[in-house]
Amino acid sequence: MKREAYDRRVSALRQGLADRSPGDCDTLWIIQPENRRYLSGFRAVDGQFTESSGSLLINDSRSILLTDSRYTTEAENEAVDFYVRTLKQGLPEGFPEVVKEIGTRTLGFEEDYLTCGLHRQLREKFEEVSPPVRLSPLEGLVEKMREVKDDPEIKAIEASADLMSAILDEVVAGLKPGVTEKQVAWQIEGMAREGGADDLAFPSIVASGPNSAMPHALPTDRKLRSGEPVILDVGVRLDGYCSDMTRTVFLGDPTSEMRKIYRTVRLAQLTALKAVRPGVESNEPDAIARDIIKEAGYGSYFGHGLGHGVGLATHEGPRLSPVKPTKLRKGSVVTVEPGVYVPGKGGVRLEEMVVIEADGARVLTKAGNFYDFTS
Amino acid sequence: MKREAYDRRVSALRQGLADRSPGDCDTLWIIQPENRRYLSGFRAVDGQFTESSGSLLINDSRSILLTDSRYTTEAENEAVDFYVRTLKQGLPEGFPEVVKEIGTRTLGFEEDYLTCGLHRQLREKFEEVSPPVRLSPLEGLVEKMREVKDDPEIKAIEASADLMSAILDEVVAGLKPGVTEKQVAWQIEGMAREGGADDLAFPSIVASGPNSAMPHALPTDRKLRSGEPVILDVGVRLDGYCSDMTRTVFLGDPTSEMRKIYRTVRLAQLTALKAVRPGVESNEPDAIARDIIKEAGYGSYFGHGLGHGVGLATHEGPRLSPVKPTKLRKGSVVTVEPGVYVPGKGGVRLEEMVVIEADGARVLTKAGNFYDFTS
Repeated sequence: MKREAYDRRVSALRQGLADRSPGDCDTLWIIQPENRRYLSGFRAVDGQFTESSGSLLINDSRSILLTDSRYTTEAENEAVDFYVRTLKQGLPEGFPEVVKEIGTRTLGFEEDYLTCGLHRQLREKFEEVSPPVRLSPLEGLVEKMREVKDDPEIKAIEASADLMSAILDEVVAGLKPGVTEKQVAWQIEGMAREGGADDLAFPSIVASGPNSAMPHALPTDRKLRSGEPVILDVGVRLDGYCSDMTRTVFLGDPTSEMRKIYRTVRLAQLTALKAVRPGVESNEPDAIARDIIKEAGYGSYFGHGLGHGVGLATHEGPRLSPVKPTKLRKGSVVTVEPGVYVPGKGGVRLEEMVVIEADGARVLTKAGNFYDFTS
Repeated sequence: MKREAYDRRVSALRQGLADRSPGDCDTLWIIQPENRRYLSGFRAVDGQFTESSGSLLINDSRSILLTDSRYTTEAENEAVDFYVRTLKQGLPEGFPEVVKEIGTRTLGFEEDYLTCGLHRQLREKFEEVSPPVRLSPLEGLVEKMREVKDDPEIKAIEASADLMSAILDEVVAGLKPGVTEKQVAWQIEGMAREGGADDLAFPSIVASGPNSAMPHALPTDRKLRSGEPVILDVGVRLDGYCSDMTRTVFLGDPTSEMRKIYRTVRLAQLTALKAVRPGVESNEPDAIARDIIKEAGYGSYFGHGLGHGVGLATHEGPRLSPVKPTKLRKGSVVTVEPGVYVPGKGGVRLEEMVVIEADGARVLTKAGNFYDFTS
């Protein structure tokens, strides 16, 4: 990602800050790891949720990256437009001094990421600052920006999808009864690493036979068998950006019921894809897919939403689900992934990742491996 | 882990609940993933921090696992003593009904894990319940229990440490100048997987030359060179339990300064290890190691704490650090990992994982690879 991209994003954020009513919030505190990277280029991940590797403080004139001594060098190398400040003690101890120095009166924090515990500690510390600093919750400010990708981001996501598609094509071509789910998952991971991925975007799902009825099954030592469905839900992180795609594969002839389920899910997917366009309400494609599945008699077996945004995080906005609809926008990248899961029998999920362009959805996940069970 | 272990833990938690002052908290809500597994056996991990795969509700007579349709089957298979309740809509929507049914008046929540955003949503929903439900913060209730391991846990951690030690011995024996940090990291990951690990406990650190001066460096394409330090900080997760160990290796003769640094760090480690005993304040071993490093002139190059607890999480209590000392207890498992990092030159970190027994620390990380630079 070029330096200009970070400049542009911080400027947009600062503009948003200037547009707020006075006294509302004069400094933004960004702790969410993907938001932090999006604005600064600082690539560190957090070891555990409760172990931050750093956070950003942005007001009308200052850009500061707060971190501790473990990350100072990386922070200085990566977040070149930020002043890196290394806190010697923990955050609640060192933070009040910094906000006092930069004149913060109201600090906007990410309410969907800050814990109640840390909030309580900071509130107590900030009351002792003179003049006192107030904490004000932000609802997904940077997340909203991230929902519309800029060109360098779309290129990065395409590269991630291309790598994953190539890997999946090769893996599916080599699938044979007798190999275990874990072996397939491990093969995917090795190819991702050799292909230059930073990491998997999420632990691969390789779920065969009855395991395919569990939408988030972890790979087991179960061997693939002929005729059964195998769900492969996989993604890599390349240069920070995630891909996410799912194919359901049969080795040998599936039962007629699995054929019907597959046909239903594929029809639901293709129909929903046509509805993914700028201006459409985000619950509409979901409703289209859900109706087709319900019509076929499997309504109660499709328990999750149709899709989600993908970018620096595997799961981000906008959501394609029945709840909290928003208008879809040009530049968003979303998945379209209907599924039917029949407990004890098995399931089918098919997932494409698309970028929303002016005239509709362009599919980024190019791996083949679709069946034509229409006849 | 046997079913009795979960029984025992839930009973202990329930006893703690009964001992609280009346009205203080009648139901515990456990959302932290390791706490959830510790009490129920439910093994699912959370996809992202904001994406819970489930939570536990425990009062004097009920044990409920709340989840969504993606995880129902696993939850029922794994958390056998819990009643699995699948919420059709999101947590804030479905939760009020459940707490009303079980008669909750005050719900204890984990303040170090619940976000301000979800807390706000729940508070609003709970006010509409009749009679209203109050939210009451818990500070590390289950985390405190987890600080003292029971016998099945110590066995599981030993197995994890044994696997990691065997891998590290083999990897170090095969290290050669010219291979990259990433290649070494990948070899470790492959051996972990082949050895039956669930996963790595954390991304391996393989940091050579100047990279070794960054305590949390990610592996790069840099090739190992003769004479330079290589820090390997690695761990696996086996049957849920983590290991964590660090060795610093030289391929060929190190400089006299690196020899001095190594000697200092090893002396600090061995001396601190002798101080790790039940009843000792947790900041004491840290102070001992820190003094030795300061004495040698490297005080400003040891920026992190001496160690931390290890168990279901890689980093948990008790902490061996200058802040918030607690008394060390029999049955805790902690790391002892002093380090010296000289920017631009390189660093040395040495880390053992030990279980605290009645008469002192027993080292669990058996890999060799220590140098005797005393002469």
